[in-house]
Amino acid sequence: MVEKPVVERLRINFKTLEEFQRFQEYGLEELSMLEDLQANMIEDDSNSPFYGIYYGDKLVARMSLYHISGKYDRYFDPPQDYLELWKLEVLLGYRHRGYGTALVEYAKSFNMPIKTNARQQSGDFWLKMGFKPVKYNPVRDRGESPYIWLPPNVKEREWTEEEENEHEN
Amino acid sequence: MVEKPVVERLRINFKTLEEFQRFQEYGLEELSMLEDLQANMIEDDSNSPFYGIYYGDKLVARMSLYHISGKYDRYFDPPQDYLELWKLEVLLGYRHRGYGTALVEYAKSFNMPIKTNARQQSGDFWLKMGFKPVKYNPVRDRGESPYIWLPPNVKEREWTEEEENEHEN
Repeated sequence: MVEKPVVERLRINFKTLEEFQRFQEYGLEELSMLEDLQANMIEDDSNSPFYGIYYGDKLVARMSLYHISGKYDRYFDPPQDYLELWKLEVLLGYRHRGYGTALVEYAKSFNMPIKTNARQQSGDFWLKMGFKPVKYNPVRDRGESPYIWLPPNVKEREWTEEEENEHEN
Repeated sequence: MVEKPVVERLRINFKTLEEFQRFQEYGLEELSMLEDLQANMIEDDSNSPFYGIYYGDKLVARMSLYHISGKYDRYFDPPQDYLELWKLEVLLGYRHRGYGTALVEYAKSFNMPIKTNARQQSGDFWLKMGFKPVKYNPVRDRGESPYIWLPPNVKEREWTEEEENEHEN
């Protein structure tokens, strides 16, 4: 019998940041959190943007989920608050057990639109999760490959030609 | 005697896109332009966001410069239109001749604030160009390492703690 994976919101403390080092997408985000911890600016922060799945004591999957204010929304119609999902990653040796799916389903449970950037080869996964690729907009997307998930009554924002050409000097 | 490099706005046509393939940062942006060309949606476009330097017939350096509307500005005070500089790259074999500097100086000549994302090890170059790193804001920067250049009377935007915590659920 396979246990249903449990998604937890991660506390940001030295232990969690040590666990993060096992993930490929370890970078500025984590270093910035480490600095804040060392400077005592945050302490065992329970309001972190990270969610994860433990296998025993070991963090084996995680994602980051940011609440983006509607005033910066360029993806949805009508413009509204949405979630930006990134750093979704399952450690090697723990893949194909539904951990990635469990994290994405958890993100969807907030019932807000979600935007992510599909890394190479991950398009099929996002389609399976009910996401769809947006029409590429060079000014907004700058090399990203955004996929979005829409709750009921939310549409992909369509850009007028005038808005698309806003960058032209 | 070293000739002063001449910066040109690049026309987007099949020849330019072939030149682009020599650069490491060839990706979705270029593929999207290629599709638009093939679909006859653009034709020898002179309003491209790309600027470059030729050595003889060969494109040896380039950058992309997007005009971002002030309504999406999260970097400057007061909020205003700015330029997003990316894909700055000089081909191997043509470095240390001032081509990168010439492109950045060209970008500064518009006298608008500029934002870029400093890739690994490039911080010193941006400092030399008069840019400065911004205070990392996790919701806005999501792993980027933004450097900005400020014309007179423009300041870096300071985020209140309330705004910084906007992502917390």
